[in-house]
Amino acid sequence: MAIIGLDLGGTKLAVGIFDQAGKLFRHHQVSLDGRTGPAVGALLCRQIRQVIKSFTAESIEAIGIAIPGIYNPVTERVWAPNIGGWEDYPLKRDIEKVSGGLAVMIDSDRVCCILGETWIGNARGCSDAVFLTVGTGIAAGVMSDGNVIRGAGHIAGALGWMAIERKYESGFKQYGCLETYGCGDGMARLAEKIAAEKNQPKPDWSASDIIRMADQHPIAKEVIEYCICSWGIAVANLISIFNPQKIIFGGGVFGPAISYLPRIHAEANKWAQPISQQQVEILPSSLYSHAALYGAARLNQHFLHAQTNRREV
Amino acid sequence: MAIIGLDLGGTKLAVGIFDQAGKLFRHHQVSLDGRTGPAVGALLCRQIRQVIKSFTAESIEAIGIAIPGIYNPVTERVWAPNIGGWEDYPLKRDIEKVSGGLAVMIDSDRVCCILGETWIGNARGCSDAVFLTVGTGIAAGVMSDGNVIRGAGHIAGALGWMAIERKYESGFKQYGCLETYGCGDGMARLAEKIAAEKNQPKPDWSASDIIRMADQHPIAKEVIEYCICSWGIAVANLISIFNPQKIIFGGGVFGPAISYLPRIHAEANKWAQPISQQQVEILPSSLYSHAALYGAARLNQHFLHAQTNRREV
Repeated sequence: MAIIGLDLGGTKLAVGIFDQAGKLFRHHQVSLDGRTGPAVGALLCRQIRQVIKSFTAESIEAIGIAIPGIYNPVTERVWAPNIGGWEDYPLKRDIEKVSGGLAVMIDSDRVCCILGETWIGNARGCSDAVFLTVGTGIAAGVMSDGNVIRGAGHIAGALGWMAIERKYESGFKQYGCLETYGCGDGMARLAEKIAAEKNQPKPDWSASDIIRMADQHPIAKEVIEYCICSWGIAVANLISIFNPQKIIFGGGVFGPAISYLPRIHAEANKWAQPISQQQVEILPSSLYSHAALYGAARLNQHFLHAQTNRREV
Repeated sequence: MAIIGLDLGGTKLAVGIFDQAGKLFRHHQVSLDGRTGPAVGALLCRQIRQVIKSFTAESIEAIGIAIPGIYNPVTERVWAPNIGGWEDYPLKRDIEKVSGGLAVMIDSDRVCCILGETWIGNARGCSDAVFLTVGTGIAAGVMSDGNVIRGAGHIAGALGWMAIERKYESGFKQYGCLETYGCGDGMARLAEKIAAEKNQPKPDWSASDIIRMADQHPIAKEVIEYCICSWGIAVANLISIFNPQKIIFGGGVFGPAISYLPRIHAEANKWAQPISQQQVEILPSSLYSHAALYGAARLNQHFLHAQTNRREV
């Protein structure tokens, strides 16, 4: 039996066909090409229809979709700030028109990342693990004792909003304290801020420019030092709060910043609960940009277990 | 059917008899009187034996014990730093000698506090809630989607170690960043530190002295302002990470500091994820110093659900 996984981003859609053991045996990617609103839903439907057509219907087990935002399983609607017109989009309704009665599961990319990584990646088999995404934003997908942390409103893991200093800056209102200078765009913002403080010309750098120049340019170096401290504190807080077996780094910045993991770990060890810090491994994602795609394919299996065993509180 | 709940602290033991609906119909407290090691175990056994004697054996459902440390359910041993000789104490073995085959459940006081409060307190019926204890230390008991967060090594919720500033101080190594100046003893430490910085005589204040003098004495006021900021940031981070319905304040400091909750909440709102912050209520414990005692009594019922529905990850 095959599983169809889809990972929707702000600019592209990845589609993968998996077997039940988590082997990805076919995948491709399509650009959103500026689509918004129902046109994005139609793109997903077309992709799903094409995949279903290439199989006999009975040989597909389920469809799982990772979305870049919040999925509300009660209303079955999606809030995705980077997709125009998806403030409250009825994605499930769209998909069920083409899914031919197959199980359709939708969840946030942060939840999918930790499901993928605990299924088949560097946190494989862990009951307690965190997937820390540092890319255009910062978020955490958390598994605790085999359960994914979703929160009452399905927006748990909003790690970009973690406060890691006492001095409030107005920019935090928009991005959150950690994310303001700690995500990819944030690193660029910080470079600009430091340059302005030093009366130097405004740099036009991406996060990967900054990482590449860290050994040569003093401003790039300063950004990296600042971020290693921020990421280390964030990791420390995840360790103290969740006492996980693994913390997995992913997202566009990790990626190129992966060589800083030992320094981030050392910074975390300054701050974290001392017993918990001895019990955790800090690793890069082994699924790279596919973690959410794997997790999307895992959603139905995970949900079946959870559903069967759902208990009254 | 009755349930026996015990809440062991560093200096005293509370014993309560509950019915299955959470009604506490008898309770008393005994001092540890400086006991350490097996003498503490013997005290618990004696108390349990006395209660059992006062019932017919069939009319007791279970025994639950909250301990001030970490309980390892695999080794069935307790680490409790404030009880001499309890680095790795076989408490379960002791209790089973007197329990006459009744179910015996042991867990940390932080887990018991959130179980008590979601059972019968101000977070009653919540699936997602946090019990924040600020007393001689700082810790969080967390329930997420009906599951208690324990962590891989049973030491999740070590909130005293939350890093909330970038500037590291050597004292953090011993207490953790938040706890160094944010718990009861920490408030006294901070008053001393501020007095030293101002070349004023060393104050000999407890946390409740500081709270009482906050409107009159500038150092007491400064401690309170600092702590409101710390507690607000900690609450913000709990909101952003867990997206809970309720955050419940308890412990010796809340208690007298409870009137600061609106200011703590306002501080948290500066930092927390903006949607999650609209979904949370921040309240004092309605069980006061009995939250862990109620939770101890709840352990067996909670565990029975979890056990029945335990799933493979």
